[in-house]
Amino acid sequence: MSIDSVRALTFDVFGTVVDWRTSIIRQLREFGMKHGVDTDWETFADDWRYDGYIGGMGRVRKGELPFQRAGELHRLKLDALLSERGIEGIPGAEVSNLNRAWHRLDPWPDSVEGLQRLRKRFIVSTLSNGETRLLVDMAKFGGLEWDCVLSAETTGAYKPDPQCYRRAIEFLGCEPHEVMMVAAHKGDLKAAQGQGMQAAFIPRPHEPGPDRPVDLVPDPAFQLWADGLVELATKLGC
Amino acid sequence: MSIDSVRALTFDVFGTVVDWRTSIIRQLREFGMKHGVDTDWETFADDWRYDGYIGGMGRVRKGELPFQRAGELHRLKLDALLSERGIEGIPGAEVSNLNRAWHRLDPWPDSVEGLQRLRKRFIVSTLSNGETRLLVDMAKFGGLEWDCVLSAETTGAYKPDPQCYRRAIEFLGCEPHEVMMVAAHKGDLKAAQGQGMQAAFIPRPHEPGPDRPVDLVPDPAFQLWADGLVELATKLGC
Repeated sequence: MSIDSVRALTFDVFGTVVDWRTSIIRQLREFGMKHGVDTDWETFADDWRYDGYIGGMGRVRKGELPFQRAGELHRLKLDALLSERGIEGIPGAEVSNLNRAWHRLDPWPDSVEGLQRLRKRFIVSTLSNGETRLLVDMAKFGGLEWDCVLSAETTGAYKPDPQCYRRAIEFLGCEPHEVMMVAAHKGDLKAAQGQGMQAAFIPRPHEPGPDRPVDLVPDPAFQLWADGLVELATKLGC
Repeated sequence: MSIDSVRALTFDVFGTVVDWRTSIIRQLREFGMKHGVDTDWETFADDWRYDGYIGGMGRVRKGELPFQRAGELHRLKLDALLSERGIEGIPGAEVSNLNRAWHRLDPWPDSVEGLQRLRKRFIVSTLSNGETRLLVDMAKFGGLEWDCVLSAETTGAYKPDPQCYRRAIEFLGCEPHEVMMVAAHKGDLKAAQGQGMQAAFIPRPHEPGPDRPVDLVPDPAFQLWADGLVELATKLGC
């Protein structure tokens, strides 16, 4: 399998293209200042992400919850976290706006330029567990230029379910080896390879907080490794 | 229902954003020159479009054919037309390339600028019966900048089936009245309005050939009427 056959790149978004943690903590602090409430916003952000969103997707995949959009999983956990931490009496519209903090995440410094360069030669698409509207809002917020917005919502299954990758390959009108998954997370890449796709690993050492382990070791099973999307563009001849 | 509530615009593509007929006839003539074959390419283009594609979608909607992508309907009719007109012995890769002529359609002169302006204020999406890959290729070919590529393929139903509009509204995370369908074809707009969407009519007098009637009369049931996408942007305050 040669990287010369790649026609389309599908990107994991949270962590790979955008720095969700810094962006969410900043917006939580702004929310706290506005409403005169304080808590440990770093653990709030981590609980929201890892327990609420990733845990929620796990429950959907096990059949414990019906399929629902990321925004709905985020909201379930946000309501629980606010309640657990005794943050009460916030107007509903303000809570809804805080839930949409996930639509307003800053790209990593190399993301906008890297995607612009890659897009000249490849079809550049999201393949995220976030829903269409979230991804579209985030692209407009951060200046990310996608050719196509594919997600768990359009494919009907959360990654790493094989259906998510298979349906994305169909939408892109490609053979599996013509599509390269780009992600900071090895499980996502291995699942894509399981469906015949190629894989590019983008280590993001600052994605998780300081206390959470992050696997940065290149794996020879992946076709490419790059330190950010600008380097990925260079390695792909863009 | 006020146009001030519009957040997203969904565009019909063939005829509304791109001039399919001129583009297809030009590519058919190039194909004929290359392979030393000649026929009436104008009626070839019209049969391909109206009988093959639109007729094929009608058969899908009636349940006579299983759901399939526009490219597959185009190919079925292309093979039949070549055979009927005695054009034989063309290599398979050349026929496949000709079928992809629908991925290489020129925008109307106002389309690129109009979409650029509209995109600053609205979510700008396709809502076409063409499939994802066709729409992505066409956007890259013609310089059309979409926030989102929605189609019969992503919604699982061809327009004017209500499911196509309803699923698009869900993907856009909007209320129905927050989405405005933009089209040159009144049937598409009426079907969108039937699902609670708003409607903008863009008459395209040169879409069909000289012998085919085209309905250009504004209908007061539509929220907007504009002579092209630049004028639409102006009317929507962009």
